[in-house]
Amino acid sequence: MISAPSGAGKTSICREILALLPGLRQSISYTTRAMRPGERDGVDYHFVALDVFQRMIGDGAFVEWAQVHGNYYGTARAILEEASAEGADVLLDIDFQGAEQLRRSGLSGVFIFILPPDMEELRKRLASRNTDDEDVIARRLANAAGEIAEAVNFDYLVVNDVFEQAVEMIWAILIAETARTDRMIDTLPEEFGLK
Amino acid sequence: MISAPSGAGKTSICREILALLPGLRQSISYTTRAMRPGERDGVDYHFVALDVFQRMIGDGAFVEWAQVHGNYYGTARAILEEASAEGADVLLDIDFQGAEQLRRSGLSGVFIFILPPDMEELRKRLASRNTDDEDVIARRLANAAGEIAEAVNFDYLVVNDVFEQAVEMIWAILIAETARTDRMIDTLPEEFGLK
Repeated sequence: MISAPSGAGKTSICREILALLPGLRQSISYTTRAMRPGERDGVDYHFVALDVFQRMIGDGAFVEWAQVHGNYYGTARAILEEASAEGADVLLDIDFQGAEQLRRSGLSGVFIFILPPDMEELRKRLASRNTDDEDVIARRLANAAGEIAEAVNFDYLVVNDVFEQAVEMIWAILIAETARTDRMIDTLPEEFGLK
Repeated sequence: MISAPSGAGKTSICREILALLPGLRQSISYTTRAMRPGERDGVDYHFVALDVFQRMIGDGAFVEWAQVHGNYYGTARAILEEASAEGADVLLDIDFQGAEQLRRSGLSGVFIFILPPDMEELRKRLASRNTDDEDVIARRLANAAGEIAEAVNFDYLVVNDVFEQAVEMIWAILIAETARTDRMIDTLPEEFGLK
């Protein structure tokens, strides 16, 4: 699970991580928000209408969903169940509320929160997007401050100051987590007597 | 803390890790065992006589010490205290008993155990050293089996099958651990409200 306040660089980092780790699956979220220039349906998100999203909620199709800045976002249960059955790892690029829902649900996973170097840099990055107006930026900044202050529940905090360094750190975390004792034990020979 | 049964490749891996991470300090252990061909005093170990080692035990100079295969090994308290005061990280290349002592003492650290791919490979590696006779090898193998079966208390298990992959994994673990939330919080701006 990789989460971050808007503008911290989560989307670019996740794209790079997926390129570096070909075995890692991507969970493409569902959303009701409008497509931004350059985005593609089924690649960046599954873009759906509000009534479709609400029907999916009713059907229990989401393992987590949240309303963020007036739009809905959700992760399909089917993607996680399929990966789990096949022993594959999935990268969830997920908002703060969604990550909290998954953490509280007891889902076994690695929770990473990406931070900007400071709030002024986050403001600059949001402003340079040119896709949102002034009060949308102000709202995103206020939300970001609230999320950052609550990030202590994540397993790892990664500062996205130099992009390549943040990518390397997240790569290292994902590699290292595969060697944690509880994940390794089932992969080792019986003769070790560790099971 | 990096620990392993004899023959798993700990010494070579630690040498490589120290070359990759110049900021990481090495704790050179004290030992009473005989120097092997190619080893140097003060580089591989501080080689000391039994009476010197015993006096150091009496003086409380060791943060951990153990008797392994008839020889004494110990880690000097001064090295850890100095590094801690200066905010530096120290790599401890340490035997199983020593690691257990440090873990039980509540020392904050990352405990990594290196494993051979299987017991037959470990036997081959011990035999190919040509420095020990048959019953020394048999004793080391029996000790190794006992240590491996108890390795569940370590944080990470790394299999040394392909040397370069084991080095990369331990490098990833050491990098990733610096991003753990409890270690990051003090490094972040006050304005994040995380402290």
